[in-house]
Amino acid sequence: MDVISVIRTKRDKGELSPEQIDWVIDAYTRGAVADEQMSALAMAILLNGMNRDEIARWTAAMIASGERMDFSSLSRPTADKHSTGGVGDKITLPLAPLVAACGAAVPQLSGRGLGHTGGTLDKLESIPGWRALLSNEEMLHVLDTTGAVICAAGDGLAPADKKLYALRDVTGTVEAIPLIASSIMSKKIAEGTGSLVLDVKVGTGAFMKNIEDARELASTMVRLGTDSGVKTVALLTDMSTPLGLTAGNALEVRESVEVLAGGGPADVVELTIALAREMLDAAGIKDADPAKALADGSAMDVWRRMIAAQGGDPDANLPVAREQHVVTAPSSGVLTRLDAYDIGIAAWRLGAGRARKEDPVQAGAGVELHARPGDTVTAGQPLLTLHTDTPEKFDYALDSLENTWDIAPTGTAFTPSPIVLDRIA
Amino acid sequence: MDVISVIRTKRDKGELSPEQIDWVIDAYTRGAVADEQMSALAMAILLNGMNRDEIARWTAAMIASGERMDFSSLSRPTADKHSTGGVGDKITLPLAPLVAACGAAVPQLSGRGLGHTGGTLDKLESIPGWRALLSNEEMLHVLDTTGAVICAAGDGLAPADKKLYALRDVTGTVEAIPLIASSIMSKKIAEGTGSLVLDVKVGTGAFMKNIEDARELASTMVRLGTDSGVKTVALLTDMSTPLGLTAGNALEVRESVEVLAGGGPADVVELTIALAREMLDAAGIKDADPAKALADGSAMDVWRRMIAAQGGDPDANLPVAREQHVVTAPSSGVLTRLDAYDIGIAAWRLGAGRARKEDPVQAGAGVELHARPGDTVTAGQPLLTLHTDTPEKFDYALDSLENTWDIAPTGTAFTPSPIVLDRIA
Repeated sequence: MDVISVIRTKRDKGELSPEQIDWVIDAYTRGAVADEQMSALAMAILLNGMNRDEIARWTAAMIASGERMDFSSLSRPTADKHSTGGVGDKITLPLAPLVAACGAAVPQLSGRGLGHTGGTLDKLESIPGWRALLSNEEMLHVLDTTGAVICAAGDGLAPADKKLYALRDVTGTVEAIPLIASSIMSKKIAEGTGSLVLDVKVGTGAFMKNIEDARELASTMVRLGTDSGVKTVALLTDMSTPLGLTAGNALEVRESVEVLAGGGPADVVELTIALAREMLDAAGIKDADPAKALADGSAMDVWRRMIAAQGGDPDANLPVAREQHVVTAPSSGVLTRLDAYDIGIAAWRLGAGRARKEDPVQAGAGVELHARPGDTVTAGQPLLTLHTDTPEKFDYALDSLENTWDIAPTGTAFTPSPIVLDRIA
Repeated sequence: MDVISVIRTKRDKGELSPEQIDWVIDAYTRGAVADEQMSALAMAILLNGMNRDEIARWTAAMIASGERMDFSSLSRPTADKHSTGGVGDKITLPLAPLVAACGAAVPQLSGRGLGHTGGTLDKLESIPGWRALLSNEEMLHVLDTTGAVICAAGDGLAPADKKLYALRDVTGTVEAIPLIASSIMSKKIAEGTGSLVLDVKVGTGAFMKNIEDARELASTMVRLGTDSGVKTVALLTDMSTPLGLTAGNALEVRESVEVLAGGGPADVVELTIALAREMLDAAGIKDADPAKALADGSAMDVWRRMIAAQGGDPDANLPVAREQHVVTAPSSGVLTRLDAYDIGIAAWRLGAGRARKEDPVQAGAGVELHARPGDTVTAGQPLLTLHTDTPEKFDYALDSLENTWDIAPTGTAFTPSPIVLDRIA
């Protein structure tokens, strides 16, 4: 077996054999296949695709590159959720304790933000004392005693994926559906969850800009999960507008706590409950009512215990950015568009995100929304508030907001997009 | 400018701008663009192509990465020739002194063999004492005093190409016409020749297996040369059968000396004279007769002076392999096919070629042909003689010769392919 023949097979539109896939993933993990060879193969895969069998084998080979976790000692069924990432997507924060309050065990191995989408761990780290890094034993302990845990994925899960993901990031080969699907699913399957709900975002603020691509990615992942014995369901959800009224780390934690307290923006509540229902259903838990668990405070109880179990103080004041800048509506009328991508870029430029993996993030930075599509606005009213510790970045952030909203004449009929666009099982 | 946007442009079937091309070639040469990024770009170019403007700019950027030579101090017009490589292709050896004998200055910056095709420098190094490595001053001196020089290309010419070629070799991205054409032409234009004749090989033993690809490669190179002020002509020539009766280093030198002595196989003589006429014509030299220069010994005189000027002894006995193995004809009839690729692989396995750049080659190893397509053969007569210093390789070489020839019933009408298939100017 040699790598050039593997590259040539895919380059010439052939099907990679199971032996070729097993060999190339293993050899790449060991360092016997070089980065420049794997990136050429990744580009050939991006341009020429992989069929169902190839994607399944590729995923299995990435799982086999590392350890697998085991949740069988838990008394509750496990339910996991993965979002492909969007702007203002804090859903994991209220969702994990909510589903735990309804009877499932919810292990959320999460990541940090890169680019215009925020990272769940970055958000939680704005809570004083909270630790993202747990040993496997600590993780199982928090999960067992509180019902939910949100922490960093260990280095042992799918190391081939870790290496390949970093390579794709610098070689223009991220946007390949077979590689995205196998990257996500290899970690989720290796993690050992019994069921999985995928939140596949669609729209300007998402990775997938159109519904056809999102549907293909969702179907590919659902098949991979199902074929591996993980009950898997995907919702396609709107990401043309940010979720809720905040994009930023502490800003989103605050909004999540509002949801857990029975309030919060309607779209965040709707999506949290929709995903909770899917997770409970996939985990085989009947007769639980997530709306009730939000209203009666039981989800909030899990949240407080979960945060405390990881060293965080649920009662601490959250950091606030040093400076604010208000952006006002230039005219009166109906807000018909508020672009998620632009808001994500602005939050990132204000300091909420990072350009390189090693960069720090500002806990208080981000963008606050004062109106959402469908709302009536008046000229001069606040539309957005920008938050940052580094006010010299305001102009840089404002540059990304030049074509971010549309305001139609007062009285224009307008129906916002539904949150859940489709369901694939 | 960042490399990911350059990769994405080509990945998404866009046209690279002149600024993108200049930047990426320069950044890659400096090491600011990494190998894994360049290989992803090379694969995208292989699969999505480049247009005429992009290829021209890519070539110019590779030339600009290094030094340019200057032959303007020479009293004679320069004429250069490049072959895309084949089996038994020793043509440079008789051709360079022949064209010099007719009045041109012939600088032949040559390479070593890799894979199934032999390298001109490897062949000449079988002559005791001969040196391939010359300084620029030595090269100009040999060229000026003898009319011809065959030596290794210096490191200063198109260093971007050197780096990119080594990368393509290990990443399955060699077979891209825009990259092949720009690689060859960047070196030839940087070398500063006034005219250039391209011998583009077509057939099983060549890089280009079919005439359409060969024609596209030839047209691309002719355009690149012409646009840069180098008078450029290409001949498409047959490489389905080895050239002449030998494939191997010392074996081919011996055959070349026979041609210079006025003898040698008809196909080698025919192609040598055809290329010589093109080179002389491109260099603007009228009234020279290459056939006469072979017959009257003047080409041989230049050969002897050229070899001696580089430390070689033109009268020395050439190395002979320690062991021989004769392959006989299995039946009687008309030989209608003798596959160039298989013969090339056999010669390589016998020790005439190398698998890696740092491997040594055997001077005496190779394959000798006792018949060519069109010849009548008798069952049991010698068809091939295999030569090697490592007789344990005979079986390995014989493995490559299982479907190498066709013998049709005696009396079958058969016309061998012409040597020159087409001419592109």
